[in-house]
Amino acid sequence: MIQVAILGHGVVGSGVAEVLRQNHETITHKAGDSIEIKRILDLRSFPDLPYASLFTTSFDEILNDPDIRIVVETMGGLHPAYDYVKACLLAGKSVVTSNKELVAACGDELLAVAKENNLNFLFEASVGGGIPILRPLDQCLAANEVYEIAGILNGTTNFMLTRMVQDHMDFDTALALAQQFGYAERNPAADIEGHDACRKICILASLAFGKHVYPDQVHTEGITELTPEDVRYADALSCVIKLIGRVRQQGDKIHCLVAPMLIPKTSLLADVNDVFNGIMVRGNAIGDVVFYGRGAGKLPTASAVVADVIDEVKHLNARKYLFWDRGEPDYVLDPKTDAYAYLLRFRTADKQALLNRLHEALGDIAVVSCPGAPEEELAVRTPSVTEEELNRQLATLTDITVVRRLRIAEL
Amino acid sequence: MIQVAILGHGVVGSGVAEVLRQNHETITHKAGDSIEIKRILDLRSFPDLPYASLFTTSFDEILNDPDIRIVVETMGGLHPAYDYVKACLLAGKSVVTSNKELVAACGDELLAVAKENNLNFLFEASVGGGIPILRPLDQCLAANEVYEIAGILNGTTNFMLTRMVQDHMDFDTALALAQQFGYAERNPAADIEGHDACRKICILASLAFGKHVYPDQVHTEGITELTPEDVRYADALSCVIKLIGRVRQQGDKIHCLVAPMLIPKTSLLADVNDVFNGIMVRGNAIGDVVFYGRGAGKLPTASAVVADVIDEVKHLNARKYLFWDRGEPDYVLDPKTDAYAYLLRFRTADKQALLNRLHEALGDIAVVSCPGAPEEELAVRTPSVTEEELNRQLATLTDITVVRRLRIAEL
Repeated sequence: MIQVAILGHGVVGSGVAEVLRQNHETITHKAGDSIEIKRILDLRSFPDLPYASLFTTSFDEILNDPDIRIVVETMGGLHPAYDYVKACLLAGKSVVTSNKELVAACGDELLAVAKENNLNFLFEASVGGGIPILRPLDQCLAANEVYEIAGILNGTTNFMLTRMVQDHMDFDTALALAQQFGYAERNPAADIEGHDACRKICILASLAFGKHVYPDQVHTEGITELTPEDVRYADALSCVIKLIGRVRQQGDKIHCLVAPMLIPKTSLLADVNDVFNGIMVRGNAIGDVVFYGRGAGKLPTASAVVADVIDEVKHLNARKYLFWDRGEPDYVLDPKTDAYAYLLRFRTADKQALLNRLHEALGDIAVVSCPGAPEEELAVRTPSVTEEELNRQLATLTDITVVRRLRIAEL
Repeated sequence: MIQVAILGHGVVGSGVAEVLRQNHETITHKAGDSIEIKRILDLRSFPDLPYASLFTTSFDEILNDPDIRIVVETMGGLHPAYDYVKACLLAGKSVVTSNKELVAACGDELLAVAKENNLNFLFEASVGGGIPILRPLDQCLAANEVYEIAGILNGTTNFMLTRMVQDHMDFDTALALAQQFGYAERNPAADIEGHDACRKICILASLAFGKHVYPDQVHTEGITELTPEDVRYADALSCVIKLIGRVRQQGDKIHCLVAPMLIPKTSLLADVNDVFNGIMVRGNAIGDVVFYGRGAGKLPTASAVVADVIDEVKHLNARKYLFWDRGEPDYVLDPKTDAYAYLLRFRTADKQALLNRLHEALGDIAVVSCPGAPEEELAVRTPSVTEEELNRQLATLTDITVVRRLRIAEL
């Protein structure tokens, strides 16, 4: 029998307890040993639960219990999660976490502590909820030179964008609906401003390319400025708008970005709708592979946590190979040097004059017609251009208003 | 340094050699050891290859070489592949194969031989080509009660169906195009009659539910009878037609089937087009997860083989948990007892009379209108009904011609 503790009995933590109890037989079979919850840390008490007696408010009780070999951290946030996880690793306990904020901020340090102590620190649930992605990525990485990962990594914003595309909602209505369904929190900033997706692409990038990527190194745009006009223009280009986290290798550095992008309707990611996540991995031998499923939710996320717990039970005296090095200040390239095609919208009284100037400035541009667009609006699709070059060229158009610019990605 | 041998230098075997050489640095890093090809078995010689000196026509030379620890079987077919693989396992060599025919027919026996000899027998590439599916499925299985797997498992037929749906081709034209592109073989029977998909669902079912499913236990229908009319009717029902391999748990037995089915356009599998494969895994905690990518092709398949080789290098003295028991004659339920909704098409002079009789026989049926259908054709969608019940009811309609029946699956 292997005894575990759970830190935090919120949505995910209570799901972990539920899955461990409900699928106990399958899990014992898979792990080769019975897994028992010994303690659950929470400041609240849950007197009506069948396992009410397991609760404690004292972290030290867990830390100092030598029978507890594995600790599951599902509290979220940086503190005290970081302190607790580090203390557990230093005390010789393997750790599983679903906490993407923690892994994105301190994954390199905690992996190093785990390695020094010959323990495992696993976090499959931190990206893509229940979708197995970190382990399959590790497998893709084994035989492939993986050169790009792009994904729809946040279910809340994907739900909102799906409503904006399919039901022609505006941003505020879609947000209100997401809140009504419980997909968006009262304070939705982490989702709609892209921070959640940013943390996840940081974790994927760190694993894929071997060096930690910190969230503040990644240029991050949310979806708060998207309008129904953007959706209509995307449609006119046979595209949909998705909030994409994307990392690409460039020499021994990387481009890494979170932003709303137009992607072709034929893309494998274009049909990832509602609260689903989809993650595309591109490798030199494997081609494009996509992993798809519910990116959040109590039981899907809990099942990923429990899969990690099982793996740690099977490797109590051996380490899984999962590691990356510390990051470096110049490792992530300046996003302004990253090249994209753009959809640009302008207001001008003289469209032909502007078109001529754009042709001169940006080369082979294509006019985009969108039903219902204002008379004096001109929209074009540019060829691939770096942001700094685009900025330089647009700066020369001193008398013209740029209404909107959106990246177009061939995913 | 770990030395390996490759049996068969065809499409996949030559791809394995290419991936092992091209990604040598990544692979060495991942495996923790350098992997070198010592011998390649093929009756042909390839004097122009840089590794021409590795070829041999003598299997015994490989079998009796104690330096060769891992053997990769990429010959295909049952014999001599079965004999060679078994001999290698008995001689203390771990084996990787991409041979779905072999695994579907003899996986239980070969897994048992591997277990007895404390060796690994891995075959990730046998299902879904380069898509990591068997290992992620194992992970899904760890924390979930997986109760269903459904997939588009054959790229050739999926390419043909995509052309029939998107370009309104008929079957023969789509087949000719698939042959022209090299997707279908000169003798396309294994693909278009569903045998290839059958082998793959057998492997998935065996792994998911722990007991071997043999191809001759699985009712298998191909796509040879599909017509443009079927495609139009599917569209009228907001569905597409896909060749689906499906297994569902029912008590301690299973339903397992390969057949063309109508699936809703909103299904996660409906957008799996061209030569791509998509596999949906349904678990009690995880919900629906889909794995998507190229189901065949030299390098994708080779990368899956090489990932297995790396795994075996890392586990030379330990066994991976991958096993299932021998099958049983009554383990797969009679397909006639499996319930589906059906699209039925009839020819009749008196539609209203037939409708009344169908209502009586099958309950809540819905008429399906399809533009361009013949005047005297009546099409209906039935409620969920077992095939034996459907047959019994249709047998009462002695004076009516049933033009067509197709299963509708809510995937």
